[in-house]
Amino acid sequence: MEFSLEEIARRVGGEVRGDNRVRIRGVAPINSAAKGDITFISNPKYVKALKTTEASAVIVPPGISDDSKNLIVSENSYLAFARTIEMVYGPKARPSCGVSGEARIHASAKIGRGVNVFPGVFIEQGVSIGDGCDLYPGVYVGKGSAIGSDCRLFPNVAIMDGCMIGSRVLIHAGAVIGSDGFGFAREGQVQHKIQQIGNVVVEDDVEIGSNCCIDRAVLGSTVIGRGTKMDNLIQIGHNVVIGPNCTIVAQVGVSGSTKIGSNTVIAGQVGITGHIEIGDNVEIGAKSGVINSIPSNEKYLGIPAAPISTARKTYALFYDLPEMRRELSRLRRELDALRKELEEK
Amino acid sequence: MEFSLEEIARRVGGEVRGDNRVRIRGVAPINSAAKGDITFISNPKYVKALKTTEASAVIVPPGISDDSKNLIVSENSYLAFARTIEMVYGPKARPSCGVSGEARIHASAKIGRGVNVFPGVFIEQGVSIGDGCDLYPGVYVGKGSAIGSDCRLFPNVAIMDGCMIGSRVLIHAGAVIGSDGFGFAREGQVQHKIQQIGNVVVEDDVEIGSNCCIDRAVLGSTVIGRGTKMDNLIQIGHNVVIGPNCTIVAQVGVSGSTKIGSNTVIAGQVGITGHIEIGDNVEIGAKSGVINSIPSNEKYLGIPAAPISTARKTYALFYDLPEMRRELSRLRRELDALRKELEEK
Amino acid sequence: MEFSLEEIARRVGGEVRGDNRVRIRGVAPINSAAKGDITFISNPKYVKALKTTEASAVIVPPGISDDSKNLIVSENSYLAFARTIEMVYGPKARPSCGVSGEARIHASAKIGRGVNVFPGVFIEQGVSIGDGCDLYPGVYVGKGSAIGSDCRLFPNVAIMDGCMIGSRVLIHAGAVIGSDGFGFAREGQVQHKIQQIGNVVVEDDVEIGSNCCIDRAVLGSTVIGRGTKMDNLIQIGHNVVIGPNCTIVAQVGVSGSTKIGSNTVIAGQVGITGHIEIGDNVEIGAKSGVINSIPSNEKYLGIPAAPISTARKTYALFYDLPEMRRELSRLRRELDALRKELEEK
Repeated sequence: MEFSLEEIARRVGGEVRGDNRVRIRGVAPINSAAKGDITFISNPKYVKALKTTEASAVIVPPGISDDSKNLIVSENSYLAFARTIEMVYGPKARPSCGVSGEARIHASAKIGRGVNVFPGVFIEQGVSIGDGCDLYPGVYVGKGSAIGSDCRLFPNVAIMDGCMIGSRVLIHAGAVIGSDGFGFAREGQVQHKIQQIGNVVVEDDVEIGSNCCIDRAVLGSTVIGRGTKMDNLIQIGHNVVIGPNCTIVAQVGVSGSTKIGSNTVIAGQVGITGHIEIGDNVEIGAKSGVINSIPSNEKYLGIPAAPISTARKTYALFYDLPEMRRELSRLRRELDALRKELEEK
Repeated sequence: MEFSLEEIARRVGGEVRGDNRVRIRGVAPINSAAKGDITFISNPKYVKALKTTEASAVIVPPGISDDSKNLIVSENSYLAFARTIEMVYGPKARPSCGVSGEARIHASAKIGRGVNVFPGVFIEQGVSIGDGCDLYPGVYVGKGSAIGSDCRLFPNVAIMDGCMIGSRVLIHAGAVIGSDGFGFAREGQVQHKIQQIGNVVVEDDVEIGSNCCIDRAVLGSTVIGRGTKMDNLIQIGHNVVIGPNCTIVAQVGVSGSTKIGSNTVIAGQVGITGHIEIGDNVEIGAKSGVINSIPSNEKYLGIPAAPISTARKTYALFYDLPEMRRELSRLRRELDALRKELEEK
Repeated sequence: MEFSLEEIARRVGGEVRGDNRVRIRGVAPINSAAKGDITFISNPKYVKALKTTEASAVIVPPGISDDSKNLIVSENSYLAFARTIEMVYGPKARPSCGVSGEARIHASAKIGRGVNVFPGVFIEQGVSIGDGCDLYPGVYVGKGSAIGSDCRLFPNVAIMDGCMIGSRVLIHAGAVIGSDGFGFAREGQVQHKIQQIGNVVVEDDVEIGSNCCIDRAVLGSTVIGRGTKMDNLIQIGHNVVIGPNCTIVAQVGVSGSTKIGSNTVIAGQVGITGHIEIGDNVEIGAKSGVINSIPSNEKYLGIPAAPISTARKTYALFYDLPEMRRELSRLRRELDALRKELEEK
């Protein structure tokens, strides 16, 4: 599809600086964009690339200007960028295989309208799949699980038995929803398995990355709240409850029974201990180790996690430790010398 | 199933305080339990919930009492809880599909009695599967691998060729057993692959979490000892040998050729370097980075891992670093002033 | 196959010390090797095992000698070891199932000569697979993806649509190439998905470990450079570009748009932030958290990552923090006492 810059600005939310008739046919990264492409600056590091890009136009946040370029200035420039991609390329095309005769679907399962079930999918007894879902090859849906409408289950996703998945949920390849929580009762040298009889509830509009693992509850439900987005390779322990609209970056681990509020952002490789509460609108910096509850609206960082200003000040001088120790030794020497001198007087 | 509190206490090991005739029909989390449910306190944090729970009875460890509630007091209350779940809900139901004609099983493979092999399973030449196993859709078992009796291989588990799996082993969805160890010989700018001709041996009663990766040995075997329990997303390098009854929490990584003793507990996101030895009954705290061998019966924590008392003392004052530096500056100023004063006298 | 020690030394590159006619029939670990086996010392920790091994010969680096053993001394002893395994056991045997009638291959897909496609593989429209590839059960290749020659795609690997895989690429079980990058534009409490319309390019001779996740670019390509080797459970974000011949150990995470040069080695569990540049020949120590760009030829370590000499000095005295604080208190007391004494004089 091809649009004028003016049409794009109007539909994605922004104001044109420059030639609003320039024609846009593609969206490309700033360093490889060519004539006819629109590009985007998200990160101040790329402002200098504005000078050299061959793009016909650039979407920028307020405060960036360049008279030699055609710009769309947008208050939420990242959202304008997202909408421009959708406008130029349209929504992602869905498959159209219908319900394959080579999928294994239990007679009792209910499959909605407009569903694609690829060959090699396995759907167990009592499952329901809502309208407009796509189940790619190798997907497994266990007994009694229910999936809402317009979900995408990419290849080799496993939904174990009894799990509830909302609508418009995307689950990327290899993710496992509802495998057993990690619970054992030690008796001397033996670990007795605790049956995990709960389930997982994934609410509407959630996205779950590739090879994530979300364990079923021992009792009750592990919950991923509405609109929460999870990156790849994340571990969610049994009975964890995550609120709506959180953002959880790759390789995070959350231990059992911890509660997380809404709109909370957890950066990559963070570990969160079990049985604590993280509030709403919390931000946790990458690689942090969280061992205590965090109230709402706080930013935490570090191992162990601390309020971000404390953590930043500390980490900023962490590598001064050797110099601090040398200074300690000097002070000791000088103090002892001074005392000796004083005694001799 | 329904039981009196007395029957439960007798069978799971505990003593009733309160009405031993009360009827129990379900097990539920303390905050959502209703009349007819029994619940459980594992963590002191939940003691206050004892006041408000609507459960008909609560399993507690010794030392917790509440005259208004019916209690089962048990020395090993976590084990009593595990047994209560089994008693009320029975063992987890097995599938009953038998050996599907839509599974691909090599003619030379030996399949025991009472085995379920779902459609979409692939079993290679020379494989043997013991009695009472369940192989879910998408499971792959490579050439010459042997699996004992009563194992559960959940969807999309891959057992590569030549691996030995014991009896009563649970392997959760997406786990990979026996993929190549990470071994290359550098020659200038080229990395030559070192054929990994060993295998993986998983002993009896092991549980392996979803999307774990256990690499085959370059020579000999990578070993997971009897009764060891592994959570999700764990990486075990080639030639690692783990002893019996260990507990390994999610996202741990163990590098090649390291040996781990028995009954050792490794918390989440720990990394352990290669070619070292971790003893028996060791406990390693979450997120630790272990770079040296650890003797038996020690508790370690931290990056780099240190004896836990050392680590705790240090981490407890880590965020005092900025104040320590300010104090250093004050001491320096005051000492210099004092010296000057002394010189002037 | 059986060889004399002399033949092995000649073909793998090394010099015999001892009996060059001794017959070698196997390769085994130093502690379990028997008569007829050759073994190998890679790590100085194992030198003492040289005394007790029953191996008929040992490959060693220069500088290790033992008159009681038959040795092959090799400048690149690790490479000599790799070649000895290949010599004694031959290259790994390929499957020979041909293109299975039970694989689902779109009519428009092009499959090269000598390709094995197992039952349960799914190949979409417009895919091309080069000569000599093996696609194991459960592999999915999405629309328009192209795979070079002599690749191995192990069970349940998913290559999403539009990705380009070079030749001689090994992708271990459960790895996911080309799932959506993690990109959302926040608007108040809603996170709008940014269509990820780029792809992944994996160049020749790359190896990708089990359950790795490599996300497709939002625009353009995520790139894994020629000859780079990746261990298991690694997360590569969208638009990351990794150069040739890197070594990336298990559980590493690289955030979006970061660039990594050539021959760089990244140890286990490292996290690298987005939008930075790591140079050529860089080494990053295990568990590091990299938050700034690193120039070529540097070694970095720590959280946050610092030049390795700085980091080592600091971590070496990290656990002296409690003693440093006690010394600070002593200095304070003594200085105050001294001042008082001086004032009194």
